Amino acid sequence: MSTNRAVRIHGKNDIRIEDLPIPEPQENWVQLRMSTVGLCRTDVHLYDEGRVDHIVINKPITIGHEISGRVSKLGQGVTDLNVGDRVAVDPLRSCGGCHQCSRGRSNICRQLHCSGVLHADGGFATYMVAPAKTCYKIPDNMSMEEGAMMEPLSVGVNGVKRARMVEGDVVVVMGAGPVGLFAMQAAKALGASRVMMVDINPKRLELALKMGVSQVFKPTVHLSNPKAASEELKAALGDEADLCIECSGAPGVVDLAIHSCRPGGKVMMLGFGEMAMKVHVGMAAVREIDILGSFANLHNYPECIRLVSEGKINVRSAITHRLPLENVMDGINLVRSGESVKVVINCDDC
Amino acid sequence: MSTNRAVRIHGKNDIRIEDLPIPEPQENWVQLRMSTVGLCRTDVHLYDEGRVDHIVINKPITIGHEISGRVSKLGQGVTDLNVGDRVAVDPLRSCGGCHQCSRGRSNICRQLHCSGVLHADGGFATYMVAPAKTCYKIPDNMSMEEGAMMEPLSVGVNGVKRARMVEGDVVVVMGAGPVGLFAMQAAKALGASRVMMVDINPKRLELALKMGVSQVFKPTVHLSNPKAASEELKAALGDEADLCIECSGAPGVVDLAIHSCRPGGKVMMLGFGEMAMKVHVGMAAVREIDILGSFANLHNYPECIRLVSEGKINVRSAITHRLPLENVMDGINLVRSGESVKVVINCDDC
Amino acid sequence: MSTNRAVRIHGKNDIRIEDLPIPEPQENWVQLRMSTVGLCRTDVHLYDEGRVDHIVINKPITIGHEISGRVSKLGQGVTDLNVGDRVAVDPLRSCGGCHQCSRGRSNICRQLHCSGVLHADGGFATYMVAPAKTCYKIPDNMSMEEGAMMEPLSVGVNGVKRARMVEGDVVVVMGAGPVGLFAMQAAKALGASRVMMVDINPKRLELALKMGVSQVFKPTVHLSNPKAASEELKAALGDEADLCIECSGAPGVVDLAIHSCRPGGKVMMLGFGEMAMKVHVGMAAVREIDILGSFANLHNYPECIRLVSEGKINVRSAITHRLPLENVMDGINLVRSGESVKVVINCDDC
Amino acid sequence: MSTNRAVRIHGKNDIRIEDLPIPEPQENWVQLRMSTVGLCRTDVHLYDEGRVDHIVINKPITIGHEISGRVSKLGQGVTDLNVGDRVAVDPLRSCGGCHQCSRGRSNICRQLHCSGVLHADGGFATYMVAPAKTCYKIPDNMSMEEGAMMEPLSVGVNGVKRARMVEGDVVVVMGAGPVGLFAMQAAKALGASRVMMVDINPKRLELALKMGVSQVFKPTVHLSNPKAASEELKAALGDEADLCIECSGAPGVVDLAIHSCRPGGKVMMLGFGEMAMKVHVGMAAVREIDILGSFANLHNYPECIRLVSEGKINVRSAITHRLPLENVMDGINLVRSGESVKVVINCDDC
Repeated sequence: MSTNRAVRIHGKNDIRIEDLPIPEPQENWVQLRMSTVGLCRTDVHLYDEGRVDHIVINKPITIGHEISGRVSKLGQGVTDLNVGDRVAVDPLRSCGGCHQCSRGRSNICRQLHCSGVLHADGGFATYMVAPAKTCYKIPDNMSMEEGAMMEPLSVGVNGVKRARMVEGDVVVVMGAGPVGLFAMQAAKALGASRVMMVDINPKRLELALKMGVSQVFKPTVHLSNPKAASEELKAALGDEADLCIECSGAPGVVDLAIHSCRPGGKVMMLGFGEMAMKVHVGMAAVREIDILGSFANLHNYPECIRLVSEGKINVRSAITHRLPLENVMDGINLVRSGESVKVVINCDDC
Repeated sequence: MSTNRAVRIHGKNDIRIEDLPIPEPQENWVQLRMSTVGLCRTDVHLYDEGRVDHIVINKPITIGHEISGRVSKLGQGVTDLNVGDRVAVDPLRSCGGCHQCSRGRSNICRQLHCSGVLHADGGFATYMVAPAKTCYKIPDNMSMEEGAMMEPLSVGVNGVKRARMVEGDVVVVMGAGPVGLFAMQAAKALGASRVMMVDINPKRLELALKMGVSQVFKPTVHLSNPKAASEELKAALGDEADLCIECSGAPGVVDLAIHSCRPGGKVMMLGFGEMAMKVHVGMAAVREIDILGSFANLHNYPECIRLVSEGKINVRSAITHRLPLENVMDGINLVRSGESVKVVINCDDC
Repeated sequence: MSTNRAVRIHGKNDIRIEDLPIPEPQENWVQLRMSTVGLCRTDVHLYDEGRVDHIVINKPITIGHEISGRVSKLGQGVTDLNVGDRVAVDPLRSCGGCHQCSRGRSNICRQLHCSGVLHADGGFATYMVAPAKTCYKIPDNMSMEEGAMMEPLSVGVNGVKRARMVEGDVVVVMGAGPVGLFAMQAAKALGASRVMMVDINPKRLELALKMGVSQVFKPTVHLSNPKAASEELKAALGDEADLCIECSGAPGVVDLAIHSCRPGGKVMMLGFGEMAMKVHVGMAAVREIDILGSFANLHNYPECIRLVSEGKINVRSAITHRLPLENVMDGINLVRSGESVKVVINCDDC
Repeated sequence: MSTNRAVRIHGKNDIRIEDLPIPEPQENWVQLRMSTVGLCRTDVHLYDEGRVDHIVINKPITIGHEISGRVSKLGQGVTDLNVGDRVAVDPLRSCGGCHQCSRGRSNICRQLHCSGVLHADGGFATYMVAPAKTCYKIPDNMSMEEGAMMEPLSVGVNGVKRARMVEGDVVVVMGAGPVGLFAMQAAKALGASRVMMVDINPKRLELALKMGVSQVFKPTVHLSNPKAASEELKAALGDEADLCIECSGAPGVVDLAIHSCRPGGKVMMLGFGEMAMKVHVGMAAVREIDILGSFANLHNYPECIRLVSEGKINVRSAITHRLPLENVMDGINLVRSGESVKVVINCDDC
């Protein structure tokens, strides 16, 4: 392979597969031969909108941020990795010196880079380069595919941890997409006594059961009446929730979550839909129900790798479709259709 | 005084001043001769609505929950108090054994009693009875009036603490009513590097300055455009907020608070307006801005008494009107008019 | 049964089995017909020394604080329990109002009562009385014997929680007696990635393996050289510890623990031997290794019951001897001999 | 100045003043013209022992780690600093990627560099170089001398914060040397209700009073009887301590601290004397008194600069001696004699 075949976004509705020079690793970086790289709703959003939040794409980048690969070349000064090492790559890079970084919140660093999304090339390619310290070796009992899932899993783990879930909590997850399924598994692995999955898609609820959720629930009351909807949910749960994890991004679900918590409970938002919505924040305040969000991950890769390697979390079952790099647009359409759960791209399948 | 003259609420728009028998203290309780008792917006709400949240008043109770008095009789078993002791009374009583109580959150106990509001007689009277352990002695350098202010101050202190404000935080308080003024002083006493007070009433901003706020701000941009309003606020502040404390209950202010925080900041809601409102919860989630509320106080009386006694907090300046018990309806009208800041009732003025 | 047959301590080396009147429950208390009650090293200490810490026994009390029983009579006002309910009893009762209680540390309340140890009759008897809110119902899938183990288990759970162990920590437990075995199981159930058990008794290490420890270790280097001993331990562990839980009370083990932690690690002392000892506290300080202790439990019964009921913890295997109440002195001798692990008394075996 | 005059340690008892080439700043570093640099007991220890902990000095380095200076040259890529900026320099540099760094504990990074102590040249010189992000601008209302004190102050601030001192705590500081005086001021600035300073040197106690301590105490009972000594201390305090900060390094003082805490209190060790000592760790454990240490600082410079700039902390009064660089050995002898409190070297005095 003498060129680097890469999926590039040039702007809104403009994704191209191009042949680029193979990138060389600078000091303390490594070059990677890509293996499996996951496709995320963020990739679809990039394609549809040509921007991330308020940052418009103004020069082409290679997308793909759920990354696994094999180390193919070492930059100067790299001592902890060897050529051939199988790694999962954390796409985030923070400045290390700002207010957020120095108090341990590097995931909200204002100068955050995210390979495949923001300011840096990602993994839908034959090769990429990454700082050595963002490459985490995966053990022999884990596949490259599982390695690629460390990114969405780390989002779920971070959400559960930032919500300060404690052992024994009763947890409700809303939305059985990839983030919801991984958040559910994280909650279970980190000590929830019970986790209920809520969705309106029976197939996704079936998958949640297969992946180990305690209980599933398909609402019948319309969410425009959050009180009634929450009463139905709580009756099915036989309790109130200590923590609701909102992963659907659908209208009304945050309000259902607030109504489903016990006083002192928490709502963690992982599924980002509308920026503004009408919710019972006043009611939440009086009941001391915290409304929280969590962005990306925070040094969670080692923990995620361990949880999967020890068999406490099964990420594999969430993968429903595997496509070669040339078919990435089919993948984007699949994610948009809602027929898939997790779609991955086999970058070495060529 | 051979009867107990008391301000009783019988239902919506029905407050009566009545002569009752003097209550006798049961085991571990004390009888108090009332001194100064503060009037709170909650009292007005009780009068206007005849209910607290969803709990309708179905038997008359004596109102008044910002309580100071002198111990006039000891129930059996009371050893820590003596007749004549000057005390501030925490109106809250929790069950001590439920899920919330056992994890240290007794202020959201489901069986919470609140003297003067919920299930128990309060302080607008000649006498009341209270559990000895809810009566906190006040030192000689504090007046009874200051003792009565321990309740609203404790609400502010608890809000600041539940928000986990840390030393050096930049804090913005919205709404310069009693709760806002006390929250502002709590934030300063607990280590905020700067506190800005936001209000549209110039007189209240003047009072805030007199009470020690670092800076005041009167918005000119309409809150229906929270982004523009927050830009004006942040320009005046010369920074973004680590913590916004919403004490106004006015529409749009929660959204202004969200927009005024830096990523990783917090919005603490102490002023309860509408239960549901349209706010940028999605935006808050992506920026990891926590939306929190705080209800009443949590064992904060000793700390509040110390802060006032040591001169770190000045509660006195917030008191703008003093009325005898017979004129309590005038006080209610004053609070409703917005012309007063804190109105207190002198129960011993007869 | 018309009398209450009870094991009473009258002073040092003076335990008598006596027939007493059956106690009647006061308001909000219940009377219990005792089932299984565990024997603890504290009981042996009471017998040998005639005191607890500096509090000398000056009037006889019934001992036994690892308590299970059936509710046999309700005091006035008890609504959450019924006659016949199977319960585990938390022996601790705090004042509820002191500095420690109000900040959520009721286990170190200065007026602490502990049934069977301090100021209150315990469970080695036919009947006892207890406050209803200290009686926790146990589910049908748990035996009374398992119920009696909630007390030592809660000590282990509280130790792990007070040490703020986090998911993924590498934990070393020193001392495979009942407390060590339960602390080990608590650490595993609460998310330790690995737990190593250290002891010099091969039988106890075998039992630890049977109860699910990840790894056992029998030191060969004398503890008078803590550095060398810790190097042997760390070589066996293949790592340094995030948390060492000292449950042996043996000389030198605290120092071994300090040396076995990584910088930033923690030593939690649950096994109380000498009050003063020579340890590397200076070295611990420079490495930011916290030296902590944990006393009794802190509202941990519901969690412990759940963990056992859900099968996450196996307490049963620790019970090596079962004796009738009349043979309690044999039990005390067994504990002192070190031949037993957990000895329990069947109070209903008569 | 065409050479860099610098105080170099070559090994035990071997400090030389030498002329070196002026160092050039690499990318993202700056060159500094030194102003005032403080002399610390660690410098004396380096001279006396020729090693730090177990790391023996095997190549000469320039000492001095309490550093202030003016930026004299910018390395490539530096944008946040300008030539002429007045800065305090945090001597610590961590790897940024290890287990400790990624969980926010970079001060105990295993690959820690400390300018002037470990692996890097310090500030007793005409010039030094430092990473731009370790240089913190000091405001106009602060002198360079005060800038140099940010290092010992940050040690005190970090100690208080790592001990999780809360507003209102009663604090006892043992040892009125520079660290103790700064820790005392940190405790006051961060909300202690009272701070007592303990020392046997009346001059130092006088200085503590001048610097704002609430109360001083000179023990008369020998520390070989910690119980009696603590009773004397507690009688003077009129209370027990929530937090004792040990800054003396003297034998017996840790044990005095343990005995002086209330149950649930904390001992923070900042003065490092013997690595091993006989202390009542068992007693501390039963009373849940945490024994903690704190090493260096953890991103505390911005907070320290703010506290001094706002007038909440007075560091200047601790400086008792000012010497030119050529007389650094006189300074070392002064520190060893105990006659000085803080000695500083004026590096620009030539």
